[in-house]
Amino acid sequence: MNSDNNLRILLARRPIGAPVAEDFQFSPAPIPVPEAGELGVRMLFLSMDPYMRGRIGAPRLGGTEPLPLGAVVEGRGIAEVTVSTDPRFQPGDIIYGELGWQTHATIQADRALKLDPALAPLTAWVGLLGHPGLTAKVGVSRILRVQPGETFVVSAAVGAVGQVAGPLAKLAGAARVVGVAGGAAKCRFAVERLGYDACIDRHAEPDLGAALVRDCPGGIDAYFDNTGGTVLAAVWPLLNRHGRIALCGHVSEYNATGEERPGPNLGSGVGRRLRIEGFGVGDHLDLMPAWRIEAAALLSEGKMVMQETIIDGFENTPKAFAAMLAGQSFGKTIVRVAPAR
Amino acid sequence: MNSDNNLRILLARRPIGAPVAEDFQFSPAPIPVPEAGELGVRMLFLSMDPYMRGRIGAPRLGGTEPLPLGAVVEGRGIAEVTVSTDPRFQPGDIIYGELGWQTHATIQADRALKLDPALAPLTAWVGLLGHPGLTAKVGVSRILRVQPGETFVVSAAVGAVGQVAGPLAKLAGAARVVGVAGGAAKCRFAVERLGYDACIDRHAEPDLGAALVRDCPGGIDAYFDNTGGTVLAAVWPLLNRHGRIALCGHVSEYNATGEERPGPNLGSGVGRRLRIEGFGVGDHLDLMPAWRIEAAALLSEGKMVMQETIIDGFENTPKAFAAMLAGQSFGKTIVRVAPAR
Repeated sequence: MNSDNNLRILLARRPIGAPVAEDFQFSPAPIPVPEAGELGVRMLFLSMDPYMRGRIGAPRLGGTEPLPLGAVVEGRGIAEVTVSTDPRFQPGDIIYGELGWQTHATIQADRALKLDPALAPLTAWVGLLGHPGLTAKVGVSRILRVQPGETFVVSAAVGAVGQVAGPLAKLAGAARVVGVAGGAAKCRFAVERLGYDACIDRHAEPDLGAALVRDCPGGIDAYFDNTGGTVLAAVWPLLNRHGRIALCGHVSEYNATGEERPGPNLGSGVGRRLRIEGFGVGDHLDLMPAWRIEAAALLSEGKMVMQETIIDGFENTPKAFAAMLAGQSFGKTIVRVAPAR
Repeated sequence: MNSDNNLRILLARRPIGAPVAEDFQFSPAPIPVPEAGELGVRMLFLSMDPYMRGRIGAPRLGGTEPLPLGAVVEGRGIAEVTVSTDPRFQPGDIIYGELGWQTHATIQADRALKLDPALAPLTAWVGLLGHPGLTAKVGVSRILRVQPGETFVVSAAVGAVGQVAGPLAKLAGAARVVGVAGGAAKCRFAVERLGYDACIDRHAEPDLGAALVRDCPGGIDAYFDNTGGTVLAAVWPLLNRHGRIALCGHVSEYNATGEERPGPNLGSGVGRRLRIEGFGVGDHLDLMPAWRIEAAALLSEGKMVMQETIIDGFENTPKAFAAMLAGQSFGKTIVRVAPAR
């Protein structure tokens, strides 16, 4: 990679099923020059987020217009300011923003967030202190409204969102916090490091429903759904009266092709007075400033853990993205594009 | 029927599918004598309500314990006090309560509601001014929170609940109120008398989804679901971002046998931020006193219509119940057991 060039990853075609190398095209370009009001930055970290699968896929019911073919793949990143046309930013400042999959970018100063490296490690800003962390906060407190004594279940329990949601539910007073994750190592981590009361390995349990009955003997009051699919189906009949589901992500189906799988019959939701609510963190950004302070405090007090999978090298971005979607990575998935100076 | 006897309808067996005559047994008994604190009453009207199908059927997920075999079928009625042991009630007073399918009953005075015949016609107390009316009120205002300018859809649009829900949505400012009902006469009534902007005849429309697209050109913001099944499935893909479903009843499935039909894939509920909420009026009885006054005022001002199907004769109760479940009756279904004096 010539450091005098910008290297970009373009959307070459829309992935069908799991994204593969051929869906992306590496394309060099001159380093972009900021216009008035903009910053020029060099990328340090790229955040791998499940929502991006929707942005590069076929148009979907209720989705926004997907990314056009040939465009730089959208994505959030952490970068160092190299050129500033705005007095609020200086070269060397570290910022967070929607920068795209590229080694160099420009961004409107008004849309860049200057990071305070003293508050938390840099990568926390795309995880615990960023959208995934706030997603967990909103799901637990605004959507599920977890109450003391309740049983709380979360899927993708050690993913970027789940690893925050479980501990937050405990802090909210949940009597029982149960995770569902893929693999023994993730489950061990959930119990030993994140304080889950139990974690079900969906790769090892032939009958997810039976495992949930075993680990949630009092039924389920609140389910934080990051996966959809089989976990959602197994949770459904175990929800107690006034049970809630926060629909946060359907990562099990983002790569799906063909007909949609049917969901639960909603009839029993009447008698049980269930509430099922889809949400997106974008509607709740009013909470972000307060959440950053709360999250940084929880981290420094040891009440929150920040598990990351960091993949080195911009050229590995498509692979890192596919691994994250396949549930092969652990915690928040981040690509390290260049060392911070 | 010997007027010196009480005639009761017992649950002879649990209906499989649609209830039939053999599921019930008529059984005479002495007229019950009230104990201290109770009233003795003679039945005037019996209210036919869909929830009763659940009470006499097999146990269901999230349901309460069903009625035991051999017991008097539960049901709400309007009756005249014949004997009172409570100074707040006099013979000749008209009361409403859980009295069961029988011509004579006793009820604890504390559980009887004395009706004010000046406020509204007697039968209004089991319809507009009773549980069905309040169900509509709660669904429109507490669950769906219908906003000015929205498109509102209700199934069983001229049923006991629907005929109140549609006009309430209009009063809440909905720009478009669309009903779904079974039969041309019901649909005509919905538009001409209840003020619906359109009403879709589900018997006449081969493609319910296409009919909904035609009648809801801006999509659907709020759906009041009284039926479940095919209407719910057709509404699902048309819900706008931040769309809501109030799950109120699944009358299309109360007689169902065998495997549950699957429901919609909830995945697209994330991007659209849908909220699906089951409710029961029993959790909202705090609103009942205010609702009765509001409803009586709406009725006297001509802003609300009270459509009833009144079937004469206690002996026709099982038939009336089955017809109501089958959607053959129109508006609120009531059995007239005896004339009011």
